[in-house]
Amino acid sequence: MAPNPQLDDNGKLCHLLTIEGLNAALIHSILDTAESFVGVNEREVKKVPLLRGKAIFNLFFEPSTRTRTTFEIAAKRLSADVVNLNIGASSQSKGETLLDTVDNLAAMGADMFIVRHSESGAAHFIARHVAPHIRVINAGDGRHAHPTQGLLDVFTIRRYKKDFSRLAIAIVGDIMHSRVARSEIHALTALGVPDLRVVGPRTLLPQGVEELGVRVYHDMEQGLKDVDVVMMLRLQNERMRGPLLPSAGEYFKHYGLTPAKLKRAKPDAIVMHPGPLNRGVEIDSAVADGPQAVILPQVTYGIAVRMAVMTLLAGSST
Amino acid sequence: MAPNPQLDDNGKLCHLLTIEGLNAALIHSILDTAESFVGVNEREVKKVPLLRGKAIFNLFFEPSTRTRTTFEIAAKRLSADVVNLNIGASSQSKGETLLDTVDNLAAMGADMFIVRHSESGAAHFIARHVAPHIRVINAGDGRHAHPTQGLLDVFTIRRYKKDFSRLAIAIVGDIMHSRVARSEIHALTALGVPDLRVVGPRTLLPQGVEELGVRVYHDMEQGLKDVDVVMMLRLQNERMRGPLLPSAGEYFKHYGLTPAKLKRAKPDAIVMHPGPLNRGVEIDSAVADGPQAVILPQVTYGIAVRMAVMTLLAGSST
Amino acid sequence: MAPNPQLDDNGKLCHLLTIEGLNAALIHSILDTAESFVGVNEREVKKVPLLRGKAIFNLFFEPSTRTRTTFEIAAKRLSADVVNLNIGASSQSKGETLLDTVDNLAAMGADMFIVRHSESGAAHFIARHVAPHIRVINAGDGRHAHPTQGLLDVFTIRRYKKDFSRLAIAIVGDIMHSRVARSEIHALTALGVPDLRVVGPRTLLPQGVEELGVRVYHDMEQGLKDVDVVMMLRLQNERMRGPLLPSAGEYFKHYGLTPAKLKRAKPDAIVMHPGPLNRGVEIDSAVADGPQAVILPQVTYGIAVRMAVMTLLAGSST
Repeated sequence: MAPNPQLDDNGKLCHLLTIEGLNAALIHSILDTAESFVGVNEREVKKVPLLRGKAIFNLFFEPSTRTRTTFEIAAKRLSADVVNLNIGASSQSKGETLLDTVDNLAAMGADMFIVRHSESGAAHFIARHVAPHIRVINAGDGRHAHPTQGLLDVFTIRRYKKDFSRLAIAIVGDIMHSRVARSEIHALTALGVPDLRVVGPRTLLPQGVEELGVRVYHDMEQGLKDVDVVMMLRLQNERMRGPLLPSAGEYFKHYGLTPAKLKRAKPDAIVMHPGPLNRGVEIDSAVADGPQAVILPQVTYGIAVRMAVMTLLAGSST
Repeated sequence: MAPNPQLDDNGKLCHLLTIEGLNAALIHSILDTAESFVGVNEREVKKVPLLRGKAIFNLFFEPSTRTRTTFEIAAKRLSADVVNLNIGASSQSKGETLLDTVDNLAAMGADMFIVRHSESGAAHFIARHVAPHIRVINAGDGRHAHPTQGLLDVFTIRRYKKDFSRLAIAIVGDIMHSRVARSEIHALTALGVPDLRVVGPRTLLPQGVEELGVRVYHDMEQGLKDVDVVMMLRLQNERMRGPLLPSAGEYFKHYGLTPAKLKRAKPDAIVMHPGPLNRGVEIDSAVADGPQAVILPQVTYGIAVRMAVMTLLAGSST
Repeated sequence: MAPNPQLDDNGKLCHLLTIEGLNAALIHSILDTAESFVGVNEREVKKVPLLRGKAIFNLFFEPSTRTRTTFEIAAKRLSADVVNLNIGASSQSKGETLLDTVDNLAAMGADMFIVRHSESGAAHFIARHVAPHIRVINAGDGRHAHPTQGLLDVFTIRRYKKDFSRLAIAIVGDIMHSRVARSEIHALTALGVPDLRVVGPRTLLPQGVEELGVRVYHDMEQGLKDVDVVMMLRLQNERMRGPLLPSAGEYFKHYGLTPAKLKRAKPDAIVMHPGPLNRGVEIDSAVADGPQAVILPQVTYGIAVRMAVMTLLAGSST
């Protein structure tokens, strides 16, 4: 078994499971393809026939209207046939195993699976199992990875800031439980960002995170000093009431992004957030709706990036 | 802010939020467009490419399989891409605001939102907020309005009775809680119906309803006397057991449409109902399945009317 | 009313409600049409325009992700517009009758209904009611029938074993509660299988099942002796804990298909299962994943068979 099942013997991407292990050239080639789809999404007829007659399955074992919708839209713009499967506890309780479910859908003629699962490694597990012509995209697995989110984030940064080799970037919040943070860190280090920081309370930063190539800050004002990009993370509701944090209000006081704290960043710094927003918890509305926020462009570029990934994977299978 | 956000500076429809404020010419132009789609729905290939590549979002904050399906079918017949979003309590409890949800979907490239919401005014709120190229159709907001229902009702009447200026029409039932009744009253008064009546018990008629241009009847036999059209309303289940009514049986006795009561109307009167039917509560099966009922034609015309509204709105955006 | 509402006056299929009453020539003609679609499903662009502009409603009163998905895929490959309606307790509790629901969807322009319902006879009931141009496919009604499953099973057998007139076939498991078993028995007897057996405990075999043209075995080793095909049935979870069986473990010991028991069949016997699998209950993983299993080809052929049925029915309506 190859150590990285998402690359074939020629180093070409055949699944997208994680950004870990992808090099800068490969990431830039995905982003370049995404650039070509930004235009499609602004056209009157937002549709290209690239994946006509392909069967794409949204295989969501964890509920997510938002992410599922972005993949559905991306697939429909490529003219693919999309089947949405929200496989909750009820279906799995029929006793069928995960791989039996996947085998059955493959037997129905699936060309691509978009997989979200609460278990880290679920997408890898499926990718290792399926027949060689089938493609798998990880749409979030446990705390592990959310690679299309990482890609749309670096696509957004490239659009606004161009040269990654000159940037200072801070990722702020609950790094510990965030698959988004992991994918962002892998993407930004691969792209050569020289000053990458993570900012958060000790209880929400994983031990040894420095080994990923980031500097750790517990004080937000220091962490944001002179950065070009502030990447906020969503604070999951269960953390606000959990043992790791005193309260949502206390969190906002120290790590909520306010106009005052944002002043520590460069004047032209951009503010990002993967959504959905907890206004008044990790971000102040004045910032979220302010001129430095690029949160909605992230969503827009997310469609183009997902179209790019789907097209590249499908192309590699033919 | 314009007093009527659904009309642009030239008086052209850019959203459909309510029938209130639409004049007869505009309503007839919608109905004329709908006429052209009646034929499409009778063809072997029930499809036209008018909205190809457009992204239409069914944004339903209140569950409604039936209405959602009619919009989905209408959009697919126009070759649009439809995304269904049933946003129940769970999604909203993720803490995202209504406008953040809308902004995100707009950022994904939405061209049109079909909105149903339990709060009156929700569709207006969204229409005021979205970018100018995005269209909003109100598919029912609280007790306020359900304009496509109103339009399909007058389309049906026009098909069967031609000249609105000679008609006597009775709307029967729970006027108080009915957005359907409000939209019907606005449509019929705009179209110049000279004798428009509402019939129901005092507890289900709103105070001052006469100001909308209707005459009030509490006795159904009087209310139906010599009318051309009987428009029944659905009695919501919660009313049957509520403090406003003694019982469903009592209601049927006084306001249920039976063959005997229908005899008070003109011999060629038509009977309408927005569905779903409560047989034996507001309508007797002998009437619902009888020769004067046009309840299923209403459903058929509803597809054509929704295709017309979508096409007109989409056309006004280009 | 015709005794068999699925055949028109010329003996042509206008609905597919049950395999009972279909003759060998008709079944073979369906299978021949399905053969032509196997190729479509192996193409790069898995799509043909045969049902373009047709509106097909998946009308599922009983939840079933898997079967619903196979019909959805089949319809999309034929370029039809598919609307999925999962009508659970909530919608029916709005008080609308089954026929009112059907009438409404027909009024929206439905061309075909795919119906699953927990009540035996539901699809017949709907087929008798709808207008002559509308087609109905039974996707499982109570314990009565699941004809497309029966057809895909005989399609699979024909592919592997060619001549039905020389075969010995055993159907094993809970015959009593299985609509799949009923449809398989009707198909195999119509196709002239000379040695058809049912195998299971007394408590799971219906009285008088011999009248359908099968031989009854309670001992599995005897029942499998020299058969060409072993058709396993899924043991519903509720049976495992119910009064009819001591336990799932005890069931497996006597009726679970293990490599040892399979040795009693012919060396080239194939093993079938309608899914989802209860591994370790009715089938051992060594068999399910072994070289004699054709369980996933059944799924693949199921798409082609459903495309064939939809095409033949739609063709008969024009």
